[in-house]
Formats: sequence, C-alpha cells, structure tokens
Amino acid sequence: MSPVGRVEPPASAQEHLDQVQALLEGFRAGDRAPLQAMLDRLHPADVAYVLEGLPLQDRLLVWGLVRSDRDGEILLEVSDAVRDTLLADMDSAEIVAAAQNLDADEIADLAPDLPDEVVQDIIEAQDVEDRAQLQSALSYEEGTVGALMDFEVVSIRDDVTCETALRYLRRFDELPGQTDALFVVDREDHLKGVLPLKKLLVSDPDVEVAALYERAAVALAADTDAEEAAQAFERYDLVSAPVVDAQGRVIARLTVDAVLDYVRESHEEQELGKVGLREEEDIFSSVWASAKNRGPWLALNLCTAFIASRVIGAFEGSIAKLAALAALMPIVAGIGGNAGTQTLAVTVRALATNQLTASNTWRAVRREISIAALNGISIAVVISVVVTLIFGNWHLGMVIGLAMMANILIAGIAGVLVPLTIDRFRADPAIASSIFVTMTTDSMGFLVFLGLATVSGLVG
Amino acid sequence: MSPVGRVEPPASAQEHLDQVQALLEGFRAGDRAPLQAMLDRLHPADVAYVLEGLPLQDRLLVWGLVRSDRDGEILLEVSDAVRDTLLADMDSAEIVAAAQNLDADEIADLAPDLPDEVVQDIIEAQDVEDRAQLQSALSYEEGTVGALMDFEVVSIRDDVTCETALRYLRRFDELPGQTDALFVVDREDHLKGVLPLKKLLVSDPDVEVAALYERAAVALAADTDAEEAAQAFERYDLVSAPVVDAQGRVIARLTVDAVLDYVRESHEEQELGKVGLREEEDIFSSVWASAKNRGPWLALNLCTAFIASRVIGAFEGSIAKLAALAALMPIVAGIGGNAGTQTLAVTVRALATNQLTASNTWRAVRREISIAALNGISIAVVISVVVTLIFGNWHLGMVIGLAMMANILIAGIAGVLVPLTIDRFRADPAIASSIFVTMTTDSMGFLVFLGLATVSGLVG
Repeated sequence: MSPVGRVEPPASAQEHLDQVQALLEGFRAGDRAPLQAMLDRLHPADVAYVLEGLPLQDRLLVWGLVRSDRDGEILLEVSDAVRDTLLADMDSAEIVAAAQNLDADEIADLAPDLPDEVVQDIIEAQDVEDRAQLQSALSYEEGTVGALMDFEVVSIRDDVTCETALRYLRRFDELPGQTDALFVVDREDHLKGVLPLKKLLVSDPDVEVAALYERAAVALAADTDAEEAAQAFERYDLVSAPVVDAQGRVIARLTVDAVLDYVRESHEEQELGKVGLREEEDIFSSVWASAKNRGPWLALNLCTAFIASRVIGAFEGSIAKLAALAALMPIVAGIGGNAGTQTLAVTVRALATNQLTASNTWRAVRREISIAALNGISIAVVISVVVTLIFGNWHLGMVIGLAMMANILIAGIAGVLVPLTIDRFRADPAIASSIFVTMTTDSMGFLVFLGLATVSGLVG
Repeated sequence: MSPVGRVEPPASAQEHLDQVQALLEGFRAGDRAPLQAMLDRLHPADVAYVLEGLPLQDRLLVWGLVRSDRDGEILLEVSDAVRDTLLADMDSAEIVAAAQNLDADEIADLAPDLPDEVVQDIIEAQDVEDRAQLQSALSYEEGTVGALMDFEVVSIRDDVTCETALRYLRRFDELPGQTDALFVVDREDHLKGVLPLKKLLVSDPDVEVAALYERAAVALAADTDAEEAAQAFERYDLVSAPVVDAQGRVIARLTVDAVLDYVRESHEEQELGKVGLREEEDIFSSVWASAKNRGPWLALNLCTAFIASRVIGAFEGSIAKLAALAALMPIVAGIGGNAGTQTLAVTVRALATNQLTASNTWRAVRREISIAALNGISIAVVISVVVTLIFGNWHLGMVIGLAMMANILIAGIAGVLVPLTIDRFRADPAIASSIFVTMTTDSMGFLVFLGLATVSGLVG
C-alpha cells in the first residue's frame, strides 16, 4: 500500500456491496471500467464480503472480473457455501494457479473443498520444501492447532545481541503479519522462550537476547485441541504462540487472527448444528441444496415426535372421556422442555469451561433438583389454580400441578445428564443434546400427566 | 518476568485448579505456605480460572490469600457470576484500593458491578488526567467500541525519521501490550495513518516515517457498534486499530484481545439469552439466584403455552369423538417448530452478516417457501402413509399430511419474518425470535390440523 496524505474513515463493507451493485448496472449497460477498477482496489476480504452478498448470477459475473492472482486470497475469505459456488465455476488449471499464490497452511484450508485430483495437482506444482510443508499441513485434523497454524516463523538464537537481532530482521522485506515476538531457540531449534518486539524495541542494542527473553506463555503442539488453544489466547492475551514438536523444536506458529476466525466459525457451526444443519447455508444457496441440508433433521425429529405420540396413544381412552386432557398436555410437555433447555445451556457452558467434571457431577445434579423444586412449585401452584378455575375441576388442577412439578424435575436432571453423557462420548454436547432433552421432556410430560390422570381416577 | 534457561510446556489451567484443590487440603491441615506460594506465582488469568472452578467457600478462602495488588487484574478476568461473589466479600476500601492498580478502561469494565458510592470513591481517588479518562470511559454504552477501547496509544509524527521514532520508543520501559503499529498523527493529533512495527523494524533508520506509513485499515469511532468493529478485526486481521473523535483526532485504541473477549462473551450471552437467562449463571451460583434467573422465562412460556392450549380447547368436541387427533397433533406442531428454528438459524446468520436486507426480504421469503414446499411434501407423504396404515383411516392420513404441509410452510415464513421484525425494532433477533416462532408453529399447527379434521367431516 502506498502512503496517503490523509485518512478517510474507510467505507464499511456494506457500502462496498451497495457500490458494486450500482456499478453492475453500468457494467451491463457497457460501462465496464469502473467496476473493474473498484474490484482491483478492494481488499480481498472486502471482495469476499461483496461476493457473499450477491445472488449467484451476479456473484459469478464479479468473480470472473477478479484478477486471477487474487483468486486464492479471496477463496480463503469467503464462507464455505459461497466458496463452493466459486470453485464450481473454475476449471482445475485455474484452481491450481490460484493455489500458487497461497502458503501451505492456506492451501490446506481450501483442500477439503477441492476434488482429490486437483489437490494432487497442487501438491505436484509445489517446489520440494513447500511440498513437505503442504503435506504436513494437510495431515492435521480439523479442530486441532495443526489445522490453524502457519509456517511463517521468525526465530533467533539467544547468544546474539539485540543489535544483531535487529540487523537480522532488516534482511526481511517485511516481517510476517501478527509477529509480536521472535521465538528464541537453541542451535537445534528447540524453543527456549520468546522475545516480544515491544521489549526488543525499547532495549539497548548492546544487550544480549539471553538477558531479555521471556518464558513463552504457552507452547502448543500441532495436535492440541483448537478450542484449548483459543482459551489460552484469551487468557494470556496472545497475538502469536509457538507450535513445537515432541522434541520441543519450533515447527510453526499460531496467530490470533486464525484464533478469532476459529472462534467465530465454531460458534456458527454450533448454531447451525443445533438445528441439524451440517452444511453452511446462506440465503442465496440453492433451494435443492437447502432442502437436502435440512431434511434429515426433520426426519429424525419426526421419529422422536412419533415416540411421544405413541405415549399419548396409550391413553386414548382417558382422552376420549376427558378431552380437556388433550388441551392441557402440551403445556406440561412444553414448560418441561423450556426448563430442560435452560439447564442444558448452563451445563454446556460449564462443560466448555471445564467447570463441570466427573468429580462434581452429583453436586450439579443436586443443584438442578433444588432449582427445579423451587421453580416447579411456583409454576405448579399457578397452573393448578388457573386450571381449577377455568375447568371448574380441582382434581384436574391437582393432576396438572403434580405432573408439571415432576416434569420440571425430570427436565433438570436430563439437562445435566444428557450433555455430560454426550461429552463423554466425545461428541459436541452443544449440538447433540437438545433433541434428547426435549424428547425426554415431551414423552415424560405426556406420560406423567396422562398417567396420573388415569390412575388417580380423574377420568374414572 | 525473568528470563528462564529452558521452557517447559506450561501446565494447563485445569492442572492449576487440581493443584490448588490438593494444596487446599494441606492448607486446612496447617501447611499454608505452598498454597500461598503457588497463588503468588500464577498468572492473574490462571488465578481467575481457579476461582471459577472452586465452590463458594473454597473460592473465598483462596481469594483472601491473593495479594491485594493483584485483586484488580483478577476481578477483570473472572466471569460476572464469580465477580459478584468476590466483590460481595470485599469492603469499599478494598475495592477502591484494587481499582488503583487498573487503567481507566479496566475500571470502567468493573463499574457496572459496583455500588454507585464505590464508583464515586474510585473516581475521586484518581488524579486529574486519569479522572478525565475514567469519566470518558464510563460514559460509553455496553456493546460499543467505547466500552472496549483503552488509552495506551503510542503515536508519532510523520515528519521524523525511523531512527528518531526508534529512539522515541526506547524512552518507554516497555511498549503497551498488543502494539503492532504506531499511530501516525499530525501536530493536532489527527490520524494520518499507521506505521506497522513489522515495517519499522526492517526499514533503513534514515528513511522518513512519511515515506513508510500506511492508510489505516479502519478508523473506529467510540460509538461504533462493537460487533461491527469485531467484524473489521476479523476481515483485516487486525491486532490494534485507532479510535478517533469526530474531528479525526486519535483518542484511544481497540486491541484484538478485547475483541476476542467480546466475541466470546457476546456468544455466551446469546446462548443464555435464548433460554431467557439474563444473568450469567454457573454451576456454583446459589440455588435462589438461579431459580430467580430462570423463573420469568418459564412464566412467559407458560403464557404462550396457554394460548396454544386454548386453540386445542376450541376443538374438544372433535377430540372427544376421535382421540387419535390428540395423539397426532403434537407431531404437526413439533415438526413445524423444528422447521421454523432451522429457517430462523439461517435468517439470524444472514442478518448478522448483513446479507439479508430490506431489499431482498421478499426473495428470502420466496426461497423459504420453496424449501418448505419440497421438504413439506416429503414429510407429508411419509406421515400420511404411516398414519393411514397405523390407524387404518385414509381420511385421517390425508388430514395430517395436509396440516403438516401447511405448518411447515407457515414455519418457513415465520422463520424469516419474525427475526426481521425483531431486528427492525433493534432487539437481538438471535435471542428473542425463537419464542415467537414456536408459539406460531404450535398454535397454527394445532389450529390447521384440528380445524381440517373438523371441517373435512373426519369426526362427522
């Protein structure tokens, strides 16, 4: 970028999108230069934002205008859903060429969305050193530090002076982004510590690095869980952290921009995962793809709803005699479901922060039972009174009050035990728990309410 | 921190907690020194983690052992729920003393949890310059850049050489954390651009700053929405960004550690907000506080459940004649609810990324109608066939199939329009939408199914 005389507050990404949409009309009328000039000027992340906001046809038109040496960077920035549409529009040669402008870790980010042959072509197009890095980057599983790290490490030995270190740095054209510290290593590249730039910059040039450097706040391994690494970045306010191998040699680094993207993406995945969406989907995704994305979850819920329905079916005789039971039973099930998802939210958070462990499970369950008892009694009293007054039937009022109380208790217990169990099976409790909790509160709510009504002689 | 000879991978926060719990036993048996030594050695963020993981009594014991000059930092790191318990254990003088070790922006973060008199005491204990900063920091609303920014700005003029800039930096003991760039200003402190350290470090010392500095990727205002600022940090991979006043003068900065904390916290707030929890709650919170936190949401849901219940009540006659209707109606309502929350998740995400705007609302609704039509037909056919076979009643099968189809369509439309409406009223659609969507799918599911059964002569 070139220096500027003054700084205007840059346009927001939304304004870029509006401008592109306006220029697209001119483009179609034959005035092509302004749109081209604008796209060449925009930051790759802003081009990505614009592509996200355009319907498919316009998106592909704009994508065709992007200079091919910027394709790679932009593919990295767009969401999975949009990336698929862009890749579908490129041939293998174009994709391989785009990959040439990317680092090994960036290519590895794209690889899952590419056909195997194209990945093979990309690997073969790399020179020897890059190829080794790329193969290592490709080998790490999603959700580990290995999948997020990059190889732009700047390390120095501890037996030099700051003057020498600074002279060494001047041999770079520019330091890699997010470099807030140099990694201090011995002759065999074993990590000894970090020298923050904020310290190097204020030091006397004659001081030795050995006298200045600090213990690294964390040294990550490539197979460290990404969530754990993200928590360390938050805890210690890190900008970068070294990644070391089993022998403690520096092999890569993790930077805060990758962590921030990871935190946002894993949040989004959870949000979509909770309602059974496995693929990212946006409001421009094709109707077919979306229907396929959502269908299996609805089918699964159809099965659980059927189970609850069979519970009701067992009491058809009681319902035929007192149809008011049918009107009231969804209240018992619904409030139980709400109480269960409240407990679930608290439990999932406690699991994510490691507050909830095997050793205090029983304590957490007891606590939920107490809370459920308190809220259950209040709700039960209210519903008992209201039902007694509306239906003029105190027996019905008692039955619904007791059933409500019981279902809120069941909800509290399920809200702790379901996510704990799922966590133990190494699945994500934030995603998979709610269907089991609500299936429990639905079925048990119907069972307890209709069962009590039947055995208590209410419908005698 | 002092230099170390070699780096051990530091213990994870969880191991710290385990160690403290072990040392607590020794402490109670009279062996007090090891626990004290460990607490003095731990990073403030690790002490915070330990406090989070301890039950109230142990937590307050450990809190009493923390050196008072570290109280402030630790209070900043703990969650709101734990902070309340720690503050409740301190008297005003202790809180004011703890605040003396904090910067203005950090005090402002604590202020909402403190009694007004204590905040007043803290303001009065500051010297004049700090007091002005503190009052400015206190004046910004939560959710704005003002509430997240700090005042540790390092700025330089553009008419000096790099040599001079480096000499100026050496006058600091250490640069502020997260300093990745110097803010370049004119005589009146107007922002002209930024000089990244990664560029300064590799430059010839004789070059002028004017020849090196870059346009700032963003210049924020104190009243910029924090979410918008976070998106800019993600988009441009920022570590720090200048905050300017209306005249373009640099007044503060926003750093990536504050952004990362904000992203995590706003995610957690949304998760809890969705199930009606206004206050943060953890598994050690008191039972009373938790019951109070959860009660209002259950009460609200009791009201909406009652509305749905009255819809059913209107068809008691039909149900008394054909109790199978009661068993099947929760399926229609439940699948509609699931389809609605799927649409809701996609819509909320599109709103958050500004993909969905007034101009393409109609397009999004049409898209949802198409998806609902596709999935609705599949589900409807399955349920029709299954019900016809189980109940031996093709009329009932037709009615439930049509009702299911209709309710999935209703769900798709509500899943777009409800969050859009809530967004227009400037509330958070991620939090407030789901209760309205499920109320709609419940009530309409019952109405359409029971209504169709009645008017079609099924229960003639």
